[in-house]
Amino acid sequence: MQLGIVGLGRMGGNIARRLMRNGHQVVVNDRNPTAIDALAVEGAQGANDLPALVGHLARPRAIWVMLPAGEPTEQTLAQLADLLDAGDVLIDGGNSFYKDDIRRASELKKRHLHYIDVGTSGGVWGLERGYCMMIGGEQAVVERLDPLFASLAPGIGSIPRTRGRSGEPGRAEQGYIHAGPAGSGHFVKMIHNGIEYGLMQAYAEGFDILRSKASEELPPDQRYELDLAQIAEVWRRGSVVTSWLLDLTADALAADPHLEHYSGAVADSGEGRWTIDAAVEQAVPVPVLSSALFARFRSRQQQGTYGDKLLSAMRFGFGGHVERPE
Amino acid sequence: MQLGIVGLGRMGGNIARRLMRNGHQVVVNDRNPTAIDALAVEGAQGANDLPALVGHLARPRAIWVMLPAGEPTEQTLAQLADLLDAGDVLIDGGNSFYKDDIRRASELKKRHLHYIDVGTSGGVWGLERGYCMMIGGEQAVVERLDPLFASLAPGIGSIPRTRGRSGEPGRAEQGYIHAGPAGSGHFVKMIHNGIEYGLMQAYAEGFDILRSKASEELPPDQRYELDLAQIAEVWRRGSVVTSWLLDLTADALAADPHLEHYSGAVADSGEGRWTIDAAVEQAVPVPVLSSALFARFRSRQQQGTYGDKLLSAMRFGFGGHVERPE
Amino acid sequence: MQLGIVGLGRMGGNIARRLMRNGHQVVVNDRNPTAIDALAVEGAQGANDLPALVGHLARPRAIWVMLPAGEPTEQTLAQLADLLDAGDVLIDGGNSFYKDDIRRASELKKRHLHYIDVGTSGGVWGLERGYCMMIGGEQAVVERLDPLFASLAPGIGSIPRTRGRSGEPGRAEQGYIHAGPAGSGHFVKMIHNGIEYGLMQAYAEGFDILRSKASEELPPDQRYELDLAQIAEVWRRGSVVTSWLLDLTADALAADPHLEHYSGAVADSGEGRWTIDAAVEQAVPVPVLSSALFARFRSRQQQGTYGDKLLSAMRFGFGGHVERPE
Amino acid sequence: MQLGIVGLGRMGGNIARRLMRNGHQVVVNDRNPTAIDALAVEGAQGANDLPALVGHLARPRAIWVMLPAGEPTEQTLAQLADLLDAGDVLIDGGNSFYKDDIRRASELKKRHLHYIDVGTSGGVWGLERGYCMMIGGEQAVVERLDPLFASLAPGIGSIPRTRGRSGEPGRAEQGYIHAGPAGSGHFVKMIHNGIEYGLMQAYAEGFDILRSKASEELPPDQRYELDLAQIAEVWRRGSVVTSWLLDLTADALAADPHLEHYSGAVADSGEGRWTIDAAVEQAVPVPVLSSALFARFRSRQQQGTYGDKLLSAMRFGFGGHVERPE
Repeated sequence: MQLGIVGLGRMGGNIARRLMRNGHQVVVNDRNPTAIDALAVEGAQGANDLPALVGHLARPRAIWVMLPAGEPTEQTLAQLADLLDAGDVLIDGGNSFYKDDIRRASELKKRHLHYIDVGTSGGVWGLERGYCMMIGGEQAVVERLDPLFASLAPGIGSIPRTRGRSGEPGRAEQGYIHAGPAGSGHFVKMIHNGIEYGLMQAYAEGFDILRSKASEELPPDQRYELDLAQIAEVWRRGSVVTSWLLDLTADALAADPHLEHYSGAVADSGEGRWTIDAAVEQAVPVPVLSSALFARFRSRQQQGTYGDKLLSAMRFGFGGHVERPE
Repeated sequence: MQLGIVGLGRMGGNIARRLMRNGHQVVVNDRNPTAIDALAVEGAQGANDLPALVGHLARPRAIWVMLPAGEPTEQTLAQLADLLDAGDVLIDGGNSFYKDDIRRASELKKRHLHYIDVGTSGGVWGLERGYCMMIGGEQAVVERLDPLFASLAPGIGSIPRTRGRSGEPGRAEQGYIHAGPAGSGHFVKMIHNGIEYGLMQAYAEGFDILRSKASEELPPDQRYELDLAQIAEVWRRGSVVTSWLLDLTADALAADPHLEHYSGAVADSGEGRWTIDAAVEQAVPVPVLSSALFARFRSRQQQGTYGDKLLSAMRFGFGGHVERPE
Repeated sequence: MQLGIVGLGRMGGNIARRLMRNGHQVVVNDRNPTAIDALAVEGAQGANDLPALVGHLARPRAIWVMLPAGEPTEQTLAQLADLLDAGDVLIDGGNSFYKDDIRRASELKKRHLHYIDVGTSGGVWGLERGYCMMIGGEQAVVERLDPLFASLAPGIGSIPRTRGRSGEPGRAEQGYIHAGPAGSGHFVKMIHNGIEYGLMQAYAEGFDILRSKASEELPPDQRYELDLAQIAEVWRRGSVVTSWLLDLTADALAADPHLEHYSGAVADSGEGRWTIDAAVEQAVPVPVLSSALFARFRSRQQQGTYGDKLLSAMRFGFGGHVERPE
Repeated sequence: MQLGIVGLGRMGGNIARRLMRNGHQVVVNDRNPTAIDALAVEGAQGANDLPALVGHLARPRAIWVMLPAGEPTEQTLAQLADLLDAGDVLIDGGNSFYKDDIRRASELKKRHLHYIDVGTSGGVWGLERGYCMMIGGEQAVVERLDPLFASLAPGIGSIPRTRGRSGEPGRAEQGYIHAGPAGSGHFVKMIHNGIEYGLMQAYAEGFDILRSKASEELPPDQRYELDLAQIAEVWRRGSVVTSWLLDLTADALAADPHLEHYSGAVADSGEGRWTIDAAVEQAVPVPVLSSALFARFRSRQQQGTYGDKLLSAMRFGFGGHVERPE
């Protein structure tokens, strides 16, 4: 099949590569000509601008936009919409907010264009492992594009089948699903990221306790110098907490047990935040997912936030406790 | 009445003073002779050591120990127990763990000594406002000491009576209660402090949001330069969040709106921690009280805890995100 | 001064009454004629519809809309805007979302109308205690309406002045402030409510621990039958946790110590939710305020949420633990 | 090698079986004779009481106690200690509190007995997958027992090696570690369980949001009927949240998508609680791990806790809001 791709960053470039490896034809564009050239060398057709990209594609066209959420994606979609013909498909494979998908799908429908949102997980490992995809949009259009999704997905691989599943493996077992109407792909991906934050923070807190167990403030017979790399390793086999994130933890600790190469000022993305907004909107209590997000906010703050200082001020007020800046 | 007092810090010294102002006789001891002398000038009888203190008191004696919880209190109580006679009373007015009270009361009972635990709130304001006291121990002993407690308590003052309360004001309306058997005084005081942490953190978070509303990262028409001192002040009148802690906040913000005199590295005491332990033991969910404690732990950590770094390491692992130390 | 009031519920009706008591003239409208008649008996001028209300007011008019946030407020404001003349003022005293205020003020400005948002705290006590008001909008318009606000506010009353404040008491000490431009009044009120949730939950958790201390699952000597009404009462005097909410707690516990008249299915309002959204948007960690909101969500759920069942299912999966419905 | 095993429940019985499969000799005891007989049929030597068990073992003996933590374990260890000879080893493979291990090791040492604590993960899957073990105690004793641990452990299996690990796989890669001195095995296992709670709750919250996205309270175009079984399945391949717990979730949802066979009244064990106590003792903020524990506490409460009712009472007090029992 043929696919146009706009945005050749880490994700977009590897998506192009994985499609070509599976026999698809890709037409690629990026604001950086070097990125286009690199893909052209590997067999893609380069397009220096959006009209050229559209011109190289046969109707009905399908164009995958893989850009940062917000303005870059919004503007590119708008420009492409003006260049396309009825029946063409725009795919947003980035991390857009699902309500933006709903709006866009509705607007594009009036112009007889189709819109598909794809929540794409895989990061730097996608080229090799394949991409886990959660897809939202019209059923018929998702069907039409199935050969592309099937090639991008990891496939059933060596992962044992879930109990009760037999026969020909379905899409979910191949690593992609059609989740529902417009926006549902990004919605499911958003929750995926929300869960990811929670899982990561659970490990972080556990290892923090393990590490601080060597503290000299504890009684000597209750003090342990634990080998965290060995602990991460042993939990990879037969324990309840085995996971890919634990595998990555074991990788990191084997290479740098004191984690000196990391700042610990942890970024967060829109998806982690929108997960909390969705939970609040739907009245679902999410103490773990919100705590994980707040821990990231806190990780980027210097000591002595305004709120913390207010605590110091109140303590001084009622108890004369002095917590002065040094 | 006559009372021995051991420990003449901020709390113990003012307790002695408030009792003397109300016509009681106090015999005082401290490891610091200067503290003894200061009280002696004000009318107390000084005692340079514990035997002297005991010697100055008529039987049945009552001795109030006002020392840091843990070893200092434990050792002093043990030394005094060896000096006392059957029927004498030891009072721990500090912040002991209530299970220690239960143990001590049981041990002292075998020696025909009485033990009273008094959770004492009032801080630097107690001399003037009086001390709110939560008392645990045997009913008859609490009754015997009532004149002391009545003098230390704030009294009914100008605070409007609770709806439905009428007639002669009881002890609770005077600001002290006999909560129950040994340990219950400190238990109630412990929960008081747990609640205090939660209240303080609620204000801290709210003011943090108000302050960050001026952030340049927000759209200009959604940015407000709010006057936090005025906000604290206005909430003192007619709002739902009026409280003494808000009064103290208003004091602090009026004097130093940017809170530059405070470090924000907020200490926590045993009572805040024991509250969480008690909730865990009793299977009571306490998300707010625990969050407030954890916020204090976090306030004392430099940026880049081990757990935070582990998050950075995982993010590098799955997404190639670089969060390096500067 | 003259003021039109639309919406004569608990808040709107008492606002009209408090203004009349202070010599102002009010013209009132409600969709329920009985509510209009009741106020007319007390001296207000009744208006059966919005055109009549507008007709009774002299220019420049000021109309206070006191309706549920969302559609009722939105539609009424739109209808009034069509009836007003340049220079007139619309006041939203309800609980609108502050971004709606910003939008409305901007739209009305194009029509030469003014818009003021007033976050109003006081509930059923406002008529007697006065209303604490946080006001957003143009400086000159707020000044023009000052006599109304001054009459509605509690005034300085018997509350001790904040340390460092002297001279003629300003607006904040009277119980109202001009917080800033459009939306800032409701923003500050929103945070007030967010803090309120946190404070309430702190008390709720503390009393929950106190109550469960009588549990038969605890060792007998660590079990206390605590008198919660007495504890609430004693904390009202001299403790760190004194507050108006504690006063209300003492009222409730004095009347009904087992709280049997309350369901515990606790409602939440837009303001509690928006506070969390604002914190997420501004990257402020708010573990206490969010926990308080989630506790309310949880309080309305029957036992056995989907998430809880998923935990049971996982436990069965890895450990054979059986948690079946009865 | 030869091992005595006391306690033939789900874990103890399968440990005996796995050892026998690997050529070891086991002598078994249980208070239930049927359990002894069942193992005897499979090749174990049965012992009807502890003296018989000790009598069947050659010196230096090793006895693995696999009983519920607390009294059952404590008493059995005490009885065995009286029967053993210098140089013998007692192993606690259950879920004891690590401070109990430290105490026991110290006491037994005085009697020239050795004590080993083994945190054992594996549940109902251990016989087949092997047991992940975290071992605390004296180095020489752990070495002596290595053949037993090696047989119980999962072995390196088909799990890809951690980056940077090469050569002969060490113990951690086989699925067991010597964590440190007495108690450290159970300490590491305790943290493992704490993390487990956090991971589980992260998934539970995420799936709760996904499910409630079908709520009729949402605008129709923002409502999705998501197929949660397919979502769990798709995340097993190529996503960041793949884990064994997700595998179990997919199993459960494939069999019972509405989870109707589960009550959602979720039990918690000592280890989840002790993790929070340890964090509090070490001043480590653990918002996620504590939230996960509290969610379990809450899952077992009927609607309308005392704390919730107090919130209703306060709301009635300040706003006249009526939240009555039905």
